[in-house]
Formats: sequence, structure tokens, C-alpha cells
Amino acid sequence: MAAKNAFYAQSGGVTAVINATACGLIQEARRHPEKIGKVFAGRDGIIGALTEDLIDTSLESDEAIARLRHTPGGAFGSCRYKLKSLEQHRAQYERLIEVFKAHDIGYFFYNGGNDSMDTAWKVSQIAEKMGYPVVCVGVPKTVDNDLPHTDCCPGFGSVAKYVATSIREAGYDVASMARTSTKIFVLEVMGRHAGWITAACGLASESIGEPPHILLFPEVPFDPERFLTRVDECVKQYGYCTVAVSEGLSDAAGKLIAESGTKDAFGHSQLGGVGQIVAQLIKDKLGYKYHWALADYLQRSARHLA
Amino acid sequence: MAAKNAFYAQSGGVTAVINATACGLIQEARRHPEKIGKVFAGRDGIIGALTEDLIDTSLESDEAIARLRHTPGGAFGSCRYKLKSLEQHRAQYERLIEVFKAHDIGYFFYNGGNDSMDTAWKVSQIAEKMGYPVVCVGVPKTVDNDLPHTDCCPGFGSVAKYVATSIREAGYDVASMARTSTKIFVLEVMGRHAGWITAACGLASESIGEPPHILLFPEVPFDPERFLTRVDECVKQYGYCTVAVSEGLSDAAGKLIAESGTKDAFGHSQLGGVGQIVAQLIKDKLGYKYHWALADYLQRSARHLA
Repeated sequence: MAAKNAFYAQSGGVTAVINATACGLIQEARRHPEKIGKVFAGRDGIIGALTEDLIDTSLESDEAIARLRHTPGGAFGSCRYKLKSLEQHRAQYERLIEVFKAHDIGYFFYNGGNDSMDTAWKVSQIAEKMGYPVVCVGVPKTVDNDLPHTDCCPGFGSVAKYVATSIREAGYDVASMARTSTKIFVLEVMGRHAGWITAACGLASESIGEPPHILLFPEVPFDPERFLTRVDECVKQYGYCTVAVSEGLSDAAGKLIAESGTKDAFGHSQLGGVGQIVAQLIKDKLGYKYHWALADYLQRSARHLA
Repeated sequence: MAAKNAFYAQSGGVTAVINATACGLIQEARRHPEKIGKVFAGRDGIIGALTEDLIDTSLESDEAIARLRHTPGGAFGSCRYKLKSLEQHRAQYERLIEVFKAHDIGYFFYNGGNDSMDTAWKVSQIAEKMGYPVVCVGVPKTVDNDLPHTDCCPGFGSVAKYVATSIREAGYDVASMARTSTKIFVLEVMGRHAGWITAACGLASESIGEPPHILLFPEVPFDPERFLTRVDECVKQYGYCTVAVSEGLSDAAGKLIAESGTKDAFGHSQLGGVGQIVAQLIKDKLGYKYHWALADYLQRSARHLA
């Protein structure tokens, strides 16, 4: 019996290194032709399966596959598309299995975050129920480092290096001219619920007094009084103060400091702007001139630092 | 007669490479002991001269000076401190010359932008009037590349590389998932009056259709209708649209799109936020989901890409 084929799909924001994962997966599959036939990739992620738009990676040379390791973006396209419960989206799950059947696919590798892991699990369940068992493997990817059962997730290391490097460089810049100019620098980084990226900013500080001076985590309710006291201490002691803040910073009641009101395809709130809010708070209460930066997609796509 | 000493001061935002200039200047001075004695650096720029707080660089080894070439920030400190007209600030100019006299300084190297070039000129004038002639040399430094008589100014190349790399990486990220998610990415870059940094973003595009798709310059009055038409064309043609916008973008009447109302020590308006304004305009008029990034100090301090 010929080996079954595999289907690989990328999901969500692609990180600086998701193509390195694709590279490793395809190379390893090529080493085991007795177990895995062709590897198909979904164009624009799982949507590629639902629309039967598959990219046959076996048509690519070993050299082209090797180059994936250093290719930015998502080579096959990704998507934000959540398959909900089996009850709500049964037709789509069934469609998925039909496409898998039509292409003799026995392995499903889903490269994404928690939602994708959940989808991979559901696909394995329905595949079994439909009498066409598929080996479903969730392949971790996230900048947030918030996947259960993983210690350090591909994507996090790259963003960690980016934010730590960035706040160190900007910190030295501010330190150089704080005496007569900007005394406060705030860097807003990703992280709705997990403070790993903000914590990574702390790697820039090798001794007391070095930037960053304050880290604001989504897990720790924002206490404006305590924050302002510490900012003022830093300015008085070091001449300036640098702050890294998670986009998901919330107050004691759990309300986001920067709720922009719009939502993404998964129903998550679209954040952005908390950096300016805490910087302006400093300006209003303490009078210090500030600058702030919003790293946004730059942080997760920074291939040059990955 | 012994060679006169030199005084070197950094001014304004320090760029990623201002210490490389300091390195070159000190190394070259050391090669000509018959012309230049010691090189003193001002602590925190010109303020170091006014407060007689001089750093004697002759105490540093050749190795330490060589390392300046790769040192981020401003090694001796910089400042935003403008000496105004001779009439208004005569006492300070005279104080400067007195300190120069006291330390036998015959050369003044002022490393900064247009304001510093102007100060160097004024110092040369008053020094002559006071009967203590000083050779005054303006040493160019700016990220904006807006210094008259220079073609490409140290500081600009570094920020150009940073912004072009960043918008390319973020552009590939957006392209990967534009089908179901973010279709618009806006990067706000520095440039109050000069669009060189925004223009540098364009270096990321090697063929038609590659990011960035639209550049908004401070020299070209913002035309919302024309802008929105082009954004929509890009989304329909390429699936997404990336925009680089100068902080100094203005309307036809010359009014800044993002006037924050605060001013810096030189009376310049403090800008920031035009990126979000044009992104929100797209969302409101065309309905496309956006992300935006504010590079701020990250762009001018990015030593790792310099």
C-alpha cells in the first residue's frame, strides 16, 4: 500500500520563522517516503483545504525547500479562519475530510496557536467518526509563547530578540539626551493575555538602572499610582525612564486600558494605543516629555533578527 | 607653540552612528598631534562646555576609541539646547569662549543638524569678535537627510535601511493573511518637513505590486480622495495595501494632519499619530481592517541594522 499524503497549513499571524517550521516538516517527510507520500500545503491555510486549493510541494526542489528556512512571511499564505464546534460547522469539517479523501491525505499538520490546536483535535475526532481516520498533529506557532504544554514556542524567540534589542537601542538613545529632552520612552508590544513578550524586553537590562526600567504585564492589574511613583523615582535616579507595556494591560476590574472597540475574525478585541495612554498619563501627572513606539507587526515579522 | 586642543559635542537625537563619527574624528586628530592636542568631548553636548564639564578623550586607549564605532546611543551624551541670536544669548556665547580659552581650545566640532550648523557659525563669529579665533566645524548628523549642502548625511543611511527592511518584513506578513484578516498596514516614520525617510521605505519594493504600495510625503499635500482611491485599487489588485507615512504629513493649507499640540525645546510641534489617523480613515471609508506601527525612536537608534 502506498504511503498516505500529508496536508500542511499555516494559521494566523505568521511569525518570522513559520517557514522554517514548514522547511523542517517537508524535509523530514522527504526522509521517510515509506510513511509519507506528497506534502500538500494549503493556499492561505485551512481555506486551501476547504476550497481544494492545494500546493503540491513535491514539485519543488530540495534547494527551494531549504530556502524556506530563511524566507520571511508565510510562504503558502495563512488565514484567520476558525472552525467552530462540530455542531455549528459540521458541513465544513465534512468538506475537509472529503478533500483529504480525494487527495489520499492521511496526515494533517496544523501550524498555529491555541485555536489551531483545537481545530486539529476536532478534525481528528470527526475523521474517526466519518470512518476516514487522519493523523492530526498540531504544530506550535505563536509569538505570545502562550501555548499549553510548550516551554518556548517557535516565533517567540524571534520576537523576544526583536523587542529586547529595540528597547535597548531606544533606551540608549533616550539616555543620551534625557537631560534636556525626552525623559520617557514607552514601547508597546504584543500580548493580549500573556506577558512573555514584555518580559523579554527585560532581557535588555544587564544591571540595575539599565533600560527597560518598568514592565507592565497583562497579568498584573495596572495601578496608576504605583506606576507613576516608580516612573518618578527612575527619572530622579537615572535621569530618564523606559517602559515596556503589553497591549493587553488591564485595570483591577479586568477592563483593557486600551479597548479600541473593533474585533477581529475570532471575536478578539483589536488592541493598540495603550502605550500612548500610559505615556500621556505620565505627561499629565508628572510633566515629563515622552516618546512612544508601537512595534505592532514589525516585532513578529522581523526576520533580520530571527 | 603647542597644538591647540579640540572640543567635540554631539547635539540632538543621536542616530545609530553618531559615535562612529566621534570615533573617526578622534582617530584622525590622534594622527595629527602637530595640529591638534587633546580632544575634549562635552558631557551632554554643548551644555558640557557651558558648565565646564569636559570629557578628556586622551585618557582613553586607542582600543576604546575604536570601539566607539560600534557603540549605540551617544557616548558622551547629547542635548537639545539651542543658542539663539548673539543679542539674546550673548552671555552664553561669551561663557563658551571663556571655557575654550581656559582649556586652550582652538577647534570646535559641533556634530548635529541644521541648528548646530548655525550655532557653529555663530560661535566662529563671536570668537573672532572676542579676539580668540576658533576654527568651528559643523559635522553633519541627521536622520532626516535635510542638511543643506550634503547629499547623504550620516544617520540617514541607517534609518533608511531600518525602515525599508521593516516595511518589507511587515508587508510580507500582511500579504500572508490578507485574504481573511488585516488588509491595511501603515508605518509611520520620522520626517517633519523632509520625506527622505518615507522615500527610503520605497527601496523595499523591487517590482510593481510589492510593498510598500503608497508613500505619503510631507512635501505633498494630503489628498484624502486620491489616497482612498489608490488604497482601494491596491486591495482589489494585490489583496492588501501597505502605506508609509511621514509624521509631518500636511493638508493643502499646510496644517499638520496630526498636530498633537505639544512643543519641544526648539518650539517644534511634537508629532505622532498620523499613521493611525490615515489608517482609521481607510477603515471608516472603505471598511478594511488595519494595523499600524509607529517606529519612533526605534528607527533612528537601530544600531543592529546600521
